[in-house]
Amino acid sequence: MAASPLKVCIVGSGNWGSAVAKIIGNNVKKLEKFASVVKMWVFEETVNGRKLTDIINNDHENVKYLPGHKLPENVFIHGICDEISGKVPKGALGISLIKGIDEGPEGLKLISDIIREKVGIDISVLMGANAANEVAAGKFCETTIGCKVTENGLLFKELLQTPNFRITVVDDADTVELCGALKNIVAVGAGFCDGLRCGDNTKAAVIRLGLMEMIAFTRIFCKGQVSTATFLESCGVADLITTCYGGRNRKVAEAFAGAGRTIEELEREMLNGQKLQGPQTSTEVYRILKQKELLDKFPLFTAVYQICYEGKPVQEMLSCLQSHPEHI
Amino acid sequence: MAASPLKVCIVGSGNWGSAVAKIIGNNVKKLEKFASVVKMWVFEETVNGRKLTDIINNDHENVKYLPGHKLPENVFIHGICDEISGKVPKGALGISLIKGIDEGPEGLKLISDIIREKVGIDISVLMGANAANEVAAGKFCETTIGCKVTENGLLFKELLQTPNFRITVVDDADTVELCGALKNIVAVGAGFCDGLRCGDNTKAAVIRLGLMEMIAFTRIFCKGQVSTATFLESCGVADLITTCYGGRNRKVAEAFAGAGRTIEELEREMLNGQKLQGPQTSTEVYRILKQKELLDKFPLFTAVYQICYEGKPVQEMLSCLQSHPEHI
Repeated sequence: MAASPLKVCIVGSGNWGSAVAKIIGNNVKKLEKFASVVKMWVFEETVNGRKLTDIINNDHENVKYLPGHKLPENVFIHGICDEISGKVPKGALGISLIKGIDEGPEGLKLISDIIREKVGIDISVLMGANAANEVAAGKFCETTIGCKVTENGLLFKELLQTPNFRITVVDDADTVELCGALKNIVAVGAGFCDGLRCGDNTKAAVIRLGLMEMIAFTRIFCKGQVSTATFLESCGVADLITTCYGGRNRKVAEAFAGAGRTIEELEREMLNGQKLQGPQTSTEVYRILKQKELLDKFPLFTAVYQICYEGKPVQEMLSCLQSHPEHI
Repeated sequence: MAASPLKVCIVGSGNWGSAVAKIIGNNVKKLEKFASVVKMWVFEETVNGRKLTDIINNDHENVKYLPGHKLPENVFIHGICDEISGKVPKGALGISLIKGIDEGPEGLKLISDIIREKVGIDISVLMGANAANEVAAGKFCETTIGCKVTENGLLFKELLQTPNFRITVVDDADTVELCGALKNIVAVGAGFCDGLRCGDNTKAAVIRLGLMEMIAFTRIFCKGQVSTATFLESCGVADLITTCYGGRNRKVAEAFAGAGRTIEELEREMLNGQKLQGPQTSTEVYRILKQKELLDKFPLFTAVYQICYEGKPVQEMLSCLQSHPEHI
């Protein structure tokens, strides 16, 4: 009780960062353990002639990335865009809310590992079926915190949980983070199914086989213990479901199946040139699997890559699954 | 090789039995291990003035339950409706394809246990995301065989697998069978969500928490070892997904949420008076949980029952989930 309150800072202020800022801002008001002012770091930009930081500080609304939601007045923004490394105290704890992976020398690198190496602090991750707008609207949902140090995961749960944002903590941080990236490959497969007008059974089979490949890939990538139970958490099966039924990876893949256009063309047309995560992740995964001579153990991941980038016909995705190692 | 070929008989000829007859009839033609004639037992009824057995034997089509699909000409029907117990040889092996449960003195009884006790033979089960019409149309899908004797499960896999009907065998027969029944309760919860116009996150959370309650209930019911991995098979997560996104339990529950009518009234209106499995199963499950004083560990199952039959407002389903034991 005598310890000074923990200071919370949010780095990044897109729609997801802003949705979480709304939760944290309200929670710290009620929890003595945390300092009552929350700082938010942002890449400065100009919106309608005003600095985004000024807008959020004065109007308490991220009008660009999360319009329509008032942020608590105790969330303040510091417009600092340079690197934060070297400025973070040694005992600080971080949690990454970024779904995605980066390229590394071995074909794939976790975002949390990059932060860990650059900033030199303990990093947990938070992943789940969490569309930012629904979270900001206070709709009931779940999420998963993956941590390396249980105590730290539980502290972040205290900071982030609300009656409608329910949290499970697991100590399988790398698995949790990989789920958030790998599900996008499966969603591309599910989108191909939709484009091919497959039935419900087929789509469910593609989602499930995708989940099995997510588990198998995680086992290889993490080398150590990977708990199957983690894939039953929100970061696993729940996020996978929403991504395969909604989500833009599914949508673009469905269009790809019927279009005769490349992924790049569809990204330009449908996403304003933004990169789609599924095909990109499939490239990194394909590179690792090829190098380890494991392509035949991952027919779904392999087919998604080859259909996206090597001209393999979309129709052949299902025939690849007929000899899936799961059924042998 | 010298052993005489194994004779296959299908008991029941609804759309699902007929879809499977199509698979088996074609498979036994290619497999020396099995006799080339497959017998099908049916409850006799009259269709357009002709006996259903005559129609199937002569026209090779179940015009009532699976119209539009020719059954292989080696599938024959015996119109025997009396009980088969006492007429089945001791060494026979059975596999149940019936999704559902029955009432027992302890509130819930597996269909496979009833068959096992009545007929006195080894029974495996087959469950998965398998809409009969899609299976009959040869669309790619998966299923799960649960067995008590691995060798028997593998024999049924040989009989039933095709390039587009892919099978995994697990030795967790009771879990596989319970999945096929319990998922219908979760689908009612998912339907309530749809009726309440919840977001994608919320629906995914309901499906996942439902899956967690399926696992926890199976652990209690089966008393022994229950493998989490079985819930990742087609019988678990895949069947759950299709049932929660399609399926009549979801549909009627959605209507219930907006209607102010009872489940019985909706069954009359929407299902021609047929009983909906989800609410019925929730009744059996509720009875067991209440008796064991475990209702608070199963807020979703409990809420589904109370909303269906005890006048609890549909809106309260989500508030029950706010204190789910998964998040404590």
